[in-house]
Amino acid sequence: MVNTIFNRFIPNEVKFYPLFKQLSGVIIAAADVLIECAKTQNHDVHSEKYRVIKEYERQGDKIAHAIFDELNRTFITPFDREDIHELAMFMDDVLDGINSSAKRLALYKPKRIPESAVQLAMLIKEATLNLQHISEELESLKKKSETVRSYCKNLHDIENKADDVYDLFVTKIFEEEKDGVELIKLKEILYEMEKTTDIAEYVGKIVRTIIVKYA
Amino acid sequence: MVNTIFNRFIPNEVKFYPLFKQLSGVIIAAADVLIECAKTQNHDVHSEKYRVIKEYERQGDKIAHAIFDELNRTFITPFDREDIHELAMFMDDVLDGINSSAKRLALYKPKRIPESAVQLAMLIKEATLNLQHISEELESLKKKSETVRSYCKNLHDIENKADDVYDLFVTKIFEEEKDGVELIKLKEILYEMEKTTDIAEYVGKIVRTIIVKYA
Amino acid sequence: MVNTIFNRFIPNEVKFYPLFKQLSGVIIAAADVLIECAKTQNHDVHSEKYRVIKEYERQGDKIAHAIFDELNRTFITPFDREDIHELAMFMDDVLDGINSSAKRLALYKPKRIPESAVQLAMLIKEATLNLQHISEELESLKKKSETVRSYCKNLHDIENKADDVYDLFVTKIFEEEKDGVELIKLKEILYEMEKTTDIAEYVGKIVRTIIVKYA
Repeated sequence: MVNTIFNRFIPNEVKFYPLFKQLSGVIIAAADVLIECAKTQNHDVHSEKYRVIKEYERQGDKIAHAIFDELNRTFITPFDREDIHELAMFMDDVLDGINSSAKRLALYKPKRIPESAVQLAMLIKEATLNLQHISEELESLKKKSETVRSYCKNLHDIENKADDVYDLFVTKIFEEEKDGVELIKLKEILYEMEKTTDIAEYVGKIVRTIIVKYA
Repeated sequence: MVNTIFNRFIPNEVKFYPLFKQLSGVIIAAADVLIECAKTQNHDVHSEKYRVIKEYERQGDKIAHAIFDELNRTFITPFDREDIHELAMFMDDVLDGINSSAKRLALYKPKRIPESAVQLAMLIKEATLNLQHISEELESLKKKSETVRSYCKNLHDIENKADDVYDLFVTKIFEEEKDGVELIKLKEILYEMEKTTDIAEYVGKIVRTIIVKYA
Repeated sequence: MVNTIFNRFIPNEVKFYPLFKQLSGVIIAAADVLIECAKTQNHDVHSEKYRVIKEYERQGDKIAHAIFDELNRTFITPFDREDIHELAMFMDDVLDGINSSAKRLALYKPKRIPESAVQLAMLIKEATLNLQHISEELESLKKKSETVRSYCKNLHDIENKADDVYDLFVTKIFEEEKDGVELIKLKEILYEMEKTTDIAEYVGKIVRTIIVKYA
C-alpha cells in the first residue's frame, strides 16, 4: 500500500471504507470461480480453479489485516471499533468457506458433481453480492438502514434456500448412491458450501445488530 | 398486531416483554411436536408433524421480527439494544434447530428411529422450558440474577446430557448398524438434535454475559 | 478456594489474573494427555487417558466459574466485564473440545489411529501454549498489544495447519479405507480435533477484538 506524504493528509475514514468494498470484490470474484469449478466434472480444472480461489483467499486475508491495522489507529464514526472488526473478520470467513469448498472439491475428486453443487455455488454468489451492497452502504448505514436491513434479509433467505437445496440433495443421494464413500464425499463438499451461506447470514446478523445499536 | 390509538399510549417496554414470552411459547410448542415426531416410526406422521413445526417456525420468525422492530424504536431499560437483539436472534435459532431436526426426520425416512432420538427431543423440550423461564424473568433480570443464572446452568447441563446421549448412540450404531447409509442418516438426524441443545446453551451464555454486563 | 480474612484484603483484580493462568495451565495439561492418547493404539489406555482429561475438564469448569463469580463483584481495569466473560467461556470451550476428542477416541474404538491424529493433537497443544501466553499478558494487554496480536496470529496459523492435516487425512482415507464405518469413525474423531483448533482461533478473535476496543 502506498503511504506517501500525500495520503497522510487523507482522513483515515476515507481510506477505511474502500477496503471493505475491495474485500467484498475479492469475495465475489472467488464465488464466481467456485461456480465455474462446480460446473465442470474435470478434476484438473478443479485443481486449477482451487489454486485461483486460494490466491483470492490470500488477498482477502491481506485486506482484512489492512482493515484491522486501520482500526487500531482510526476513530470510525459512528461505529465502535469492535463492531467493524467483527464485521471484517466474518466477511473474511465467508471467503474461507468458499476456499474450503473448492479445496474439498479438488481434493476429494468425487466421480460426479451434482447439479445441487452448482445451485449452492450460485446461492453463495448471490450472498456475496449482498455483502457487496452492504459494504457500499457502510458509510451511510444510519441513513439507509431500511435498505441495508433488506440486504440482511436477503442473506437470511439465501441461507434458507441453500438449506433446502442441501437437504433435498442429501435425501436424494441417500436413495440413489450405493457407494458409501462417494456419498460421504459429496455430502462433505456440499455441506461446506451450505455452511458458507450460514456464515454470510451471520454477517447479516452482525450488521443488523450494528444497526440496532446505532438506531 | 392491533395498533389502535389506545395501545399507542402503552409504553413500548410493556409491549416488548410479552413478545419474548410469546416466542418461548412457540418454541416449546414446536419441541412438544418434535417429541411426538420422534416417538413414531410412521413416515406419514413424520411429514405431518414436520409441517406443524414448520408453521411454528414461521410464527417464531414473525415474533422475532416484531422484537427487532420494537428494538428499533424503543429504549429498553436496563439493556443495551444489541444484547436483546442477539438474544432474540439465537432464541429463534433454537426454533430453527427443532425445525431442521424434524425436517431431516421427514426427509431421510430412516428405517427405525432409536430411543435416543426421543431422549434428545425430551432434552430439547427441557431446554425450551428454561428459555421460557428466562423470558419470564427478563423484566427483573437484575433482581433475580441468581435464579436466571441457575436456568443458564440448566441449559449447560442439558447440553452435556444431550452430548452423552448422542455419543453413546453413535458408539452403539457403529457397533450394530451394518447398513452404512442408514448409519449416516440416523447420525445426521440425531446430530441436528444435539446441536439444538448447543444453541440453547449458547442462549444461556448470552444471558450470562448480559447479567455480567449489568451486574 | 481458601477465603480467609487475609485474602479479603487482596484487591480482587490480583486474584483475577491468576485464575486465567490457572485455566490455561489445565488446558495445556489436558492437551498433553490427548497427545499421549493419540499416540497409542491400546483401547484400555484410551479409556484411562480420557478419564484423566475428563478430570481436567471438571477442574477447568470450576476455574471458569470462579472467574465468572469474580466478574460479578469486581471491576477489572481496563476491561468491560462482558469481554472477560466471553474470553473465559471460550477458553473453557477449548478444553471441552479436547475432552470431546478424547471421548470419541475412547468410545468409538477405531481399529487404528492414524499419524494425522497425533499431528492434530500436537497442533492443539501448540494452540494451548498460545492461550497461556495470552493469559500471562492479560494484565498488560494494552502495553503489549503487538506481542499478544502475534499470539492470536499464531492461533490463526495453527488452525490453518490443522485444516490442512484434516483435509489431507480425509482425502487419504477416502482412497484407502474400504470399511465405511471405520472411515466415519476416524473422520468424526479427527474432525473434533480440528474443530478444537477452530475454537482456539476464535479465542484469538475475541482477544483481537478486545485489543481493538481498548486500543
